[in-house]
Amino acid sequence: MKPLALTMGDPAGIGGELTLRAWQALHDNGPCFLALDDPARLAALSPHVPIAEVTSPDAAPSVFPTALPVLPIKLAATPQPGHPDRANARAVIASIERAASLALRRAASGLVTNPINKAALYDAGFSYPGHTEFLAALTGAHGRQIMMLASPTLRVVPVTVHASLRNAIATLTPDAIVAAASTTEAALRRDFGVAHPRLAIAGLNPHAGEQGALGDEETAIIAPAVAALRKVGIDVSGPWPPDTMFTAKARTRYDAAICMYHDQALIPLKTLDMDHGVNVTLGLPIVRTSPDHGTAYDIAGKGIADPSSLIAAIQLAATLSQRRATATRNTA
Amino acid sequence: MKPLALTMGDPAGIGGELTLRAWQALHDNGPCFLALDDPARLAALSPHVPIAEVTSPDAAPSVFPTALPVLPIKLAATPQPGHPDRANARAVIASIERAASLALRRAASGLVTNPINKAALYDAGFSYPGHTEFLAALTGAHGRQIMMLASPTLRVVPVTVHASLRNAIATLTPDAIVAAASTTEAALRRDFGVAHPRLAIAGLNPHAGEQGALGDEETAIIAPAVAALRKVGIDVSGPWPPDTMFTAKARTRYDAAICMYHDQALIPLKTLDMDHGVNVTLGLPIVRTSPDHGTAYDIAGKGIADPSSLIAAIQLAATLSQRRATATRNTA
Repeated sequence: MKPLALTMGDPAGIGGELTLRAWQALHDNGPCFLALDDPARLAALSPHVPIAEVTSPDAAPSVFPTALPVLPIKLAATPQPGHPDRANARAVIASIERAASLALRRAASGLVTNPINKAALYDAGFSYPGHTEFLAALTGAHGRQIMMLASPTLRVVPVTVHASLRNAIATLTPDAIVAAASTTEAALRRDFGVAHPRLAIAGLNPHAGEQGALGDEETAIIAPAVAALRKVGIDVSGPWPPDTMFTAKARTRYDAAICMYHDQALIPLKTLDMDHGVNVTLGLPIVRTSPDHGTAYDIAGKGIADPSSLIAAIQLAATLSQRRATATRNTA
Repeated sequence: MKPLALTMGDPAGIGGELTLRAWQALHDNGPCFLALDDPARLAALSPHVPIAEVTSPDAAPSVFPTALPVLPIKLAATPQPGHPDRANARAVIASIERAASLALRRAASGLVTNPINKAALYDAGFSYPGHTEFLAALTGAHGRQIMMLASPTLRVVPVTVHASLRNAIATLTPDAIVAAASTTEAALRRDFGVAHPRLAIAGLNPHAGEQGALGDEETAIIAPAVAALRKVGIDVSGPWPPDTMFTAKARTRYDAAICMYHDQALIPLKTLDMDHGVNVTLGLPIVRTSPDHGTAYDIAGKGIADPSSLIAAIQLAATLSQRRATATRNTA
C-alpha cells in the first residue's frame, strides 16, 4: 500500500493540529500517510511531535512509525490561528494540486483533505464552489460527483447539497436521484465491499407525502426514480417516511440512505455520531475522504479540536483504497 | 391524584392490546388509569388480563392494582384487527368526548389518547383534521395548540406540522415561531418543572443559511422571531444550523428545540429513541399525551405491538398532571 496524501487545508484553521494528533494516534499501527504542508508551521503548532521532511511519498512508510512525514509546501506568511491570510492561498491550493497529482499517478493510495475556507482562496484564482469541484477538474473526472457521509452506524448520500431548502425542493429531479443512487451503488460494491448493496430512498415530505395529501414529490419525482433504478437491477426501496428510516431497526435494512436534502441526511448522521462522520467523494477516479467539519476558526490553535473525524477519514480512505486496489487487480 | 383517562382509539388498530399491556406494566406501581373502551373487545384481545367495569373514575384507584378499570363504551360491531369499520366510529368519538369531559371537570387528571384513523370517522360526522383540533373544540381551548414530542433525551416542537415541505416553508412566519416558542416556554415552566426554560430555535436551511448564501428565511423570518422572543424575556438561542443542534453535547444547552418543519423535529427524536417518544399537546386546558405511533393496522391483533410509547405517554401525563395540580394549588 502506498501512503495516503493529507492536504494542509486552511493554515489558520484546525487542520494542522489535527494532522499532528492523527499521526500520534496512528503512527504505531497505521494507516501510513504523509502531510503536504509547511514543516515549520507544523513544528510551531506542537514542538514535541517529530517531523521528517521527505521528497517523495515512497519515503513515507519507513519514516511514519517515528515521525510525521511531510512533503514540504512553504507558506508565504506565518499563519495566525483563526485569521485566514490570503497570502497563503497559493500554498493551500498547491497542497491540494500536489496531493491529487500523487493520487492520480498512484504514488499515493488516496487523498484526505483538511478543511479549507473558499473565501480566502478566491483572490488567488480559485474559482470552484468547493474542494470537490476542484478535485473533479484536477483529476479529469467525468459525470457527477456525489457526497457520501459515512459513520460506523450510517451512510447517507444527499441528492441536493448546498442549496436553500426551497431550492433543494425546486431542483429535485428523478435524474438527480438516479445518478446519486447509481454512483452510490457502484461505490458500495467496489470500494466498500458490499456485494449486494441495498439502497433506501427517502421521501421528501412528512410521512412520505401520505399518498399525495402532504405533497406530490414522492409520486411525481421519487417513485419514478425508484422504478428506474429497479429497472436496471439496483436493489432500492422507498420512498420511505423520513422520520422513521434512521432508527436502529430501519438501518439494518439498507447499506446507504439516499436523501433528498442536506439536513435530511446530516441530522441523523450527526445526531447518532457527531465525531466519527467522514465525508467521502464518490465518482472521482481517486479515493478522497475528508473530516466532517470545517476550519473551526473559533477553536483553532487552542489544541482542543477533536481529531476523531480526521482519524476516521484517514482510516476509511485506507480501507477504500485497499478494496479498490484489490478489485482492480482482480479484474485486471 | 385522580386517574388518567385512556381513550379507545381505532378498535381495528393496536390501541386495545397496548392498553392491556400498559396495565400489566403499570398496575403494581401506577400511575393509575382507566380505559374508556368496550370491555368485551378488550377481554377478547387478551382473556387472561382481568378487567373491571366501573361506572365512575372514582372507582378506578381501588380496582387498578388487580384489574384494568374500564368505563364501558359499547362498540356497534366486533372489531376486525387491521380492518377499520365505520360502524364503530360513534363509539371511537364517544370515548374521546367522554374522556375530555372527565378531564375537564377534574374527574380524571389528564387524557391519554390511543391512535385513531380519521378517515374511518368522517362518515360519523367527525370534521376535524385530527385529535388535537377535536380536543381544542371539546375543551373550549383558546389560542393555538402546539405539538411537542418528548423523549427521555430530547423535546422538540415543530412550528409547522402536517404540511408538505414546500408548504411548510411557504407558511412559516415569525408569528408562528413566536407562538410555538411562547406556548412551549409556558408549558416547560408549569408542567415540566423547568424553572428557567432555555429554547433553541432551529434554522430552516443547511448551515442556517450561511448568512443568506443558502436561503434567507433565517434573516427574514427566524431571526426576527428570536428577537421578539428575547424582548419578552424568553431565553432563546438560534437560529442554529439544523444538523449539529441535536448532538449529545448540543442537547445539554436547551430544554426544547423549536423546529421549522415536521421531519426536522421528528428525525432526531425518532433516530435517538424510536420507542419512548410521547406526543404532548400544549395549549389545551387539560393535560393530553399520546403515543408517537399510528394505528399500525399491519400488526394489529398479533400481540407484537410495542407498548413502550403508550406506557411512556401514561407516565408523562401523570407527571405533567401532578406538576400542574401542584402549581395550581401553589398559586391558588
